[in-house]
Amino acid sequence: MLVDLPSYISGYVDGEGCFSVSIAPRPRLVVGWEVRPSFAVGQNGDRSEVLRAMQGYFGRGSIRPNRRDKTLKWEVRSLPLLWERVVPHFRQYPLLSSKRLDFDLFENICASMIEERHLSMEGLAEIVRLAARMNPSGERRYRPHVILEALEMKA
Amino acid sequence: MLVDLPSYISGYVDGEGCFSVSIAPRPRLVVGWEVRPSFAVGQNGDRSEVLRAMQGYFGRGSIRPNRRDKTLKWEVRSLPLLWERVVPHFRQYPLLSSKRLDFDLFENICASMIEERHLSMEGLAEIVRLAARMNPSGERRYRPHVILEALEMKA
Repeated sequence: MLVDLPSYISGYVDGEGCFSVSIAPRPRLVVGWEVRPSFAVGQNGDRSEVLRAMQGYFGRGSIRPNRRDKTLKWEVRSLPLLWERVVPHFRQYPLLSSKRLDFDLFENICASMIEERHLSMEGLAEIVRLAARMNPSGERRYRPHVILEALEMKA
Repeated sequence: MLVDLPSYISGYVDGEGCFSVSIAPRPRLVVGWEVRPSFAVGQNGDRSEVLRAMQGYFGRGSIRPNRRDKTLKWEVRSLPLLWERVVPHFRQYPLLSSKRLDFDLFENICASMIEERHLSMEGLAEIVRLAARMNPSGERRYRPHVILEALEMKA
């Protein structure tokens, strides 16, 4: 077979993948908000082969049904896995579409989290601003300015 | 850049591409029906880069808006282009998902058409049966058994 799997995966992700960062209130954390990066790839329920190839290639991540639209999705939420496997892959085999801009922001946010900057007010505010520039997939439960205002009130 | 473009394209197509064969009445043809194979790839309107890469790679095909869902699509309907560029690409860089079954049927139908078998009643009936086994994308305007019955009445 001539297919180069890493390149194939980048092509598939350019169509069906989604880099997202959600920010949700967590009163127990000092900063009051939790940052949750996610890399998810969808597929029709009757065609899960690519998701299994993806899971094998990246080494982990869970495949589960997406109740809303009856498809399957494979998702990685683990920061170490995102940072050690997912981010380096897309640096080596970049996306060709403007979805790459989302990846660049996602990479910056993961880098900040690896440095634990999301645990300080300033670092978190920076992450909220980066996340606000990402293409929103689905609805945002908390608008960036609401989070930034809440952070200022806490500071 | 490490990305292998042909592999990337197969990955993208596995998510966003569609092989289809429509069969429509054409009273002027001896057999009464026209076979129209199509290879189309979709993309969000704000991310047409991949469609342009695709157009460059395959050498032709048109990019146009899909009014129904506000996306762009790149489509090839020319049998020579399908046979000389598209089919050989997916033979060399095969799809990993079960969408490959659609491609196999599509390839068989294009091969029959190159041999002009769609212009005879028997050849056309064979093509109708192959097309009926393809995953229907969108609605089928003429159900396979309707076409087969019409062909038998003509024979």
